[in-house]
Amino acid sequence: MLEDKNLDLTPISAYGEFGLIKHLTENFSFKNTSTEISIGDDAAVINPENQKVVLTTDILAEGVHFNLGYVPLKHLGYKAVVVNLSDIAAMNAKPTQILVAIAASNRFPVEALEEIYAGISLACKHYNVDLVGGDTTSSTSGLIINITAVGLEVSEKIVTRSGAKVNDLLVVTGDLGGAYMGLQILEREHSVFLANPNMQPEMEGYDYILERQLKPEARTDIKKNLEELDIKPTSMIDISDGLSSETLHLSDQSKVGFRIYEEKVPMDSLTISTAEELNLNPIMCALSGGEDYELLFTISPNDFEKIKNHPDFTVIGHAVDLDQGNFLVARGSNELIALNAQGWDAFLNRGK
Amino acid sequence: MLEDKNLDLTPISAYGEFGLIKHLTENFSFKNTSTEISIGDDAAVINPENQKVVLTTDILAEGVHFNLGYVPLKHLGYKAVVVNLSDIAAMNAKPTQILVAIAASNRFPVEALEEIYAGISLACKHYNVDLVGGDTTSSTSGLIINITAVGLEVSEKIVTRSGAKVNDLLVVTGDLGGAYMGLQILEREHSVFLANPNMQPEMEGYDYILERQLKPEARTDIKKNLEELDIKPTSMIDISDGLSSETLHLSDQSKVGFRIYEEKVPMDSLTISTAEELNLNPIMCALSGGEDYELLFTISPNDFEKIKNHPDFTVIGHAVDLDQGNFLVARGSNELIALNAQGWDAFLNRGK
Repeated sequence: MLEDKNLDLTPISAYGEFGLIKHLTENFSFKNTSTEISIGDDAAVINPENQKVVLTTDILAEGVHFNLGYVPLKHLGYKAVVVNLSDIAAMNAKPTQILVAIAASNRFPVEALEEIYAGISLACKHYNVDLVGGDTTSSTSGLIINITAVGLEVSEKIVTRSGAKVNDLLVVTGDLGGAYMGLQILEREHSVFLANPNMQPEMEGYDYILERQLKPEARTDIKKNLEELDIKPTSMIDISDGLSSETLHLSDQSKVGFRIYEEKVPMDSLTISTAEELNLNPIMCALSGGEDYELLFTISPNDFEKIKNHPDFTVIGHAVDLDQGNFLVARGSNELIALNAQGWDAFLNRGK
Repeated sequence: MLEDKNLDLTPISAYGEFGLIKHLTENFSFKNTSTEISIGDDAAVINPENQKVVLTTDILAEGVHFNLGYVPLKHLGYKAVVVNLSDIAAMNAKPTQILVAIAASNRFPVEALEEIYAGISLACKHYNVDLVGGDTTSSTSGLIINITAVGLEVSEKIVTRSGAKVNDLLVVTGDLGGAYMGLQILEREHSVFLANPNMQPEMEGYDYILERQLKPEARTDIKKNLEELDIKPTSMIDISDGLSSETLHLSDQSKVGFRIYEEKVPMDSLTISTAEELNLNPIMCALSGGEDYELLFTISPNDFEKIKNHPDFTVIGHAVDLDQGNFLVARGSNELIALNAQGWDAFLNRGK
């Protein structure tokens, strides 16, 4: 579980609650002028500097959202931050602060928490966000990480899920399905390891999809790209549960339907070849796989020329009347396949 | 665990993650003009209305912070909100919004979550705060509730832990030690019940201290009282871990020492008589018991006349030079007893 197996391990109870938080957070520095008071008082104080405050919270549970059999704790800390920043990015806001709450059983020594906080620290540096609040407690079993992220932006720039209009274009960033395929490889190799601990895992050649799963990034860069192109999306969401599920959310809240063209959905060649190796349909991995943390948004058709050749963006479909429903248009046949909500769901994927 | 034992119970997996959050939160209404977007988008949006934003997060773990053997789920939901609002009140800010994240194992049916949310809803109504974000997931074991609370206030009114000066008076609201004595009674009766489930618990006559433990309130009313008295505390903290531990926090951050007079510490007569019944020293329950959620603050000695006869406030001591340390002045003898940090600590009280 720990990267260095030879450490003398320290039980969490060696620190008091306050001593532990102080120990874990003492090397964090602050980069945002909006951070006025951070850890060490009853609450943090943020100066919104005339902007609106965007807030999101996500809870990650061991055995449900992650398996410490193959997820390094440092990666886990990093990813726990990323999944929250992705929600802030999906509102077109700039992430500025996070608060971290961790419950860990006594199977986790202080050094395990240090690894998690090393990952959190790395994410804070990479995304220029400040850790301003924390609570660390024991639990009777397992590890739970809850992060709340704060973002700031002026009203006119905030983008919700509800503004898509008929004929708007549906656009996605990056490529899809990779994180899900990375998970399949990790689970396959972990099963092999459990069956025979002397077997070396065969991870070679899967780098890109393993990184998509283990160290995803939030697309906080997209906001600037869109501003440079002078585009404001009409609606936006991040892809945490698969393209299908997220499209249905935009449909539900914008009161439009969508057509997605299978041949347009961007997928990395390694994602496609790994899906085929595992006898999975690649497009299903993009539609239902989840955890890609790309952004899905709609733009006015008038903005097509601005975006059409940009390497970050792929137009994959368009909005139609709500009563026309939500369908994937199959490659070649033009057959319409209903999009359904079977994305990654913590309750249905219990134990993964 | 549930109030009505005859319900047909619904597994959480009967709802998807989004369906469940929608179901649990659909009856919540909004009271604050600062709430612009709540549950249903990637993130909530708050309009700070030219104020600073105060943020705190607290995680409650089953078997560590609460025992469902004697804590009703509705009370648990209420208390989970209160402990966070208490932190906002301790900054002298007005609580306005909360975000709730819950991880529950499959031993909890939907009806259990409904009970928790009923308690959260009651707290939201009582304190005029809006539920603006939520995440609900499964866990492999037990129940974890993480709440993040948001408060708003202008800079000039926010009070931190760090402003106490030598000669300032130390003031506490309400009375202390009751929540801890309530916990002792609940644990005693629960032990009796476990030994013999046919025994009826003997709770009669303990109402006040049981309520202090099971349904504490956050002193959000104090802010207005202080404003009416034209008093701004020089430092403030809430009493979640006992008077001793919180006094040491004020000392540490304000760089002063404190003298607390044992005879001044406000305690209810039921707290004192129950402590004596259980062979506990009453003042130790106030100093180290915790969970009273009263406010502890310092004021300029010039404000003494304004506060001295107010029923909500008791002056219990004063600030001295830091090098004079932190001591309780014993009743009668004037003996100095060092304050220590052994408050309620999630790591030391594991399993309570």
